[in-house]
Amino acid sequence: METAGFLYFWDMPTISLKGEQMPASPIRKLSPFAEAAKAAGKKVFHLNIGQPDIETPVLMLNAIKNFDEKVWAYTASEGTASYRKKLAEYYNKLNYSIKAEDILVTNGGSEAITIAMQTCLNPGDEIIIPEPFYANYNGFACMSDVVVKPILSHIENGFALPAITEFEKVITSKTKAIIICNPNNPTGYLYSKEELAALKALCLKHDLYLFSDEAYREFCYDGREFISPMHLSGLEENVIVLDTVSKRYSACGARLGCLITKNKAVMAAALKFAQARLSPAMVSQIAGEAAINTPDSYFEAVTKEYTARRDVLVNRLNKMEGVFCPNPGGAFYVVAQLPIDDADAFCQWILSDFSYQNQTVMFAPATGFYSTPGAGKQEVRMAYVLNTTDLNLAMDCLNEALKVYPGRIS
Amino acid sequence: METAGFLYFWDMPTISLKGEQMPASPIRKLSPFAEAAKAAGKKVFHLNIGQPDIETPVLMLNAIKNFDEKVWAYTASEGTASYRKKLAEYYNKLNYSIKAEDILVTNGGSEAITIAMQTCLNPGDEIIIPEPFYANYNGFACMSDVVVKPILSHIENGFALPAITEFEKVITSKTKAIIICNPNNPTGYLYSKEELAALKALCLKHDLYLFSDEAYREFCYDGREFISPMHLSGLEENVIVLDTVSKRYSACGARLGCLITKNKAVMAAALKFAQARLSPAMVSQIAGEAAINTPDSYFEAVTKEYTARRDVLVNRLNKMEGVFCPNPGGAFYVVAQLPIDDADAFCQWILSDFSYQNQTVMFAPATGFYSTPGAGKQEVRMAYVLNTTDLNLAMDCLNEALKVYPGRIS
Repeated sequence: METAGFLYFWDMPTISLKGEQMPASPIRKLSPFAEAAKAAGKKVFHLNIGQPDIETPVLMLNAIKNFDEKVWAYTASEGTASYRKKLAEYYNKLNYSIKAEDILVTNGGSEAITIAMQTCLNPGDEIIIPEPFYANYNGFACMSDVVVKPILSHIENGFALPAITEFEKVITSKTKAIIICNPNNPTGYLYSKEELAALKALCLKHDLYLFSDEAYREFCYDGREFISPMHLSGLEENVIVLDTVSKRYSACGARLGCLITKNKAVMAAALKFAQARLSPAMVSQIAGEAAINTPDSYFEAVTKEYTARRDVLVNRLNKMEGVFCPNPGGAFYVVAQLPIDDADAFCQWILSDFSYQNQTVMFAPATGFYSTPGAGKQEVRMAYVLNTTDLNLAMDCLNEALKVYPGRIS
Repeated sequence: METAGFLYFWDMPTISLKGEQMPASPIRKLSPFAEAAKAAGKKVFHLNIGQPDIETPVLMLNAIKNFDEKVWAYTASEGTASYRKKLAEYYNKLNYSIKAEDILVTNGGSEAITIAMQTCLNPGDEIIIPEPFYANYNGFACMSDVVVKPILSHIENGFALPAITEFEKVITSKTKAIIICNPNNPTGYLYSKEELAALKALCLKHDLYLFSDEAYREFCYDGREFISPMHLSGLEENVIVLDTVSKRYSACGARLGCLITKNKAVMAAALKFAQARLSPAMVSQIAGEAAINTPDSYFEAVTKEYTARRDVLVNRLNKMEGVFCPNPGGAFYVVAQLPIDDADAFCQWILSDFSYQNQTVMFAPATGFYSTPGAGKQEVRMAYVLNTTDLNLAMDCLNEALKVYPGRIS
């Protein structure tokens, strides 16, 4: 019987190399420690994940309440005509100069990124990404057999675009694309007109695609201007914008995004990937279409709220001894440098071995956002998705935690 | 200027090989001819696509009307706990003996298939599929760099499972999986207990995964029994069920499916792919959960309706001279053999060069469902997604068309 059992185990079909190599979510890996902290009666402030607490616009919520079709049918693979038309209006208010047919509606921004990679890069091709970067880019690259070439950006200058000479150093015949996230997740950095002009020159020089992940476009602070590669003339064939309604309308659960490009060959190929999966979700598109009419006052209120939160967070952090946090221009994240030995160990410790007034806080260790081994070991990402009262309480916890953390370094 | 223009064009970044090789949808490629026929004032009966006209259960539609969250948030990557629990109850009524944690909720059945392929097969690995088969399997295989090895099934025996010796002939060291669609799209064939037992023995002998696409599980006729590989003991590590609510609840636009397996290694790896894309749609899951309480009377009425439609279609077809159509046991498709030279040419001709009482009909040429070149040239797939009155009118059109089609063969 034992032999049979052994043989049976041995004969099981194996999973793929990709299945082994796919990275587990670095943001979710501390969840069991958070659950344990809660089970032990502690309140945990979640600054670890970009799930906003901001209310979804009423227009969007009402659209699905009023859904009145008798059959919940497939839509066109590229998205409904009416939603794409409305989306084009939204983008053209931002001076993207696009047509509805330049837009492919996707199941979340995630699918837009996967389709862009598969459409533009062959297995073994390379994509350059300034790091720290959105951790799931690693997963999408793994799914597409694409090689990520990270270039370090630095906390000292607020994670500005690395020098173009740094990009040039890693460009090979395999390099096919650069991806930027602007405003940036995890750093909150908002790229300047000059930085985008430098990327344009680089992409034209080396025939590279410029993937622009603009999930946080709506969230720019202190009156700063958002510049998209779509605004750069002469780069039309190179630019692919990757977007989502998740953060713009605080509607992460809608799983509704899009891919935008004026490159006809890319759009034609991307459509074939979209046809294979039939269509994006019908009800989400109805809600997304309604959302375009969200009044400016909604975004003004949200921006005001996020600015206040950022100010609380950045001010509190920089007042703590040994802590440095740049003041980012957009998104709703900061990456802060802490006087700690190891961000992963610290983020686990603060959940499992620490509390202050029976409260603690969950961060995302920045190591998960770097590809370069060892980078980000003293940095954590914080999402300011809680109100200022809770943010202050979370900072009280951090302040106390840093006083007693056994791995504190000076 | 011309030189600059030429150089500019030349310097555009190129799309990937995969982007070139992805198959365009064979079902949608005749759409321009259907649009032209409609523009010319003809009524077109659409038997070309599996979009049912059956109403979505009221329970499901009401669930989203009553959606009352203020924030449309991400759910767990594997799906909400409550939906997975409810799904497990549904499957266990069918004797699948599974737990909630054996279920991964996906963005439609399409994503379940893609994740299964990527989790189980390496680039260059082979998957065996009895043909004709659901055309998008080609697209999913292309996305995953997986090689499709088709095995011919035959209209003469109603597209029964090909002999196991035919499978053995194509098995190599690269063969990792077999995929069946049961009941079958496009043939409507329902696999028997004996056929599944034969597949079980084959999979165990060669350590192969058995992917079971059960999108049409609910649609079995004449009192025939649906058998899933989940019912076969000893095959637990090999079976991956791929499912969707699209057809079951006539809710194609929900984009809600799932992957089910008792193989823990597969589920752990599949979850990493799911984590990369964050979560399935929240509102669809709420609707999907409500749908599980759909009363049996709904399915009884639907089955009765589809049986009546199938009977009309099969009877009308077999009465036409030179036409042969097997009587399938499930799904809502038939593949019929027509006395024609070329199914693609015929399906285009009937739209653009024919009408009867100012009406015509759109079919899917069966060639799109075969991998073997030249196979299916005299066959078309018909989806009986129209009421019996319209089906009869569509068959009137076909009957007249076959009398005058210039490429008729005897």
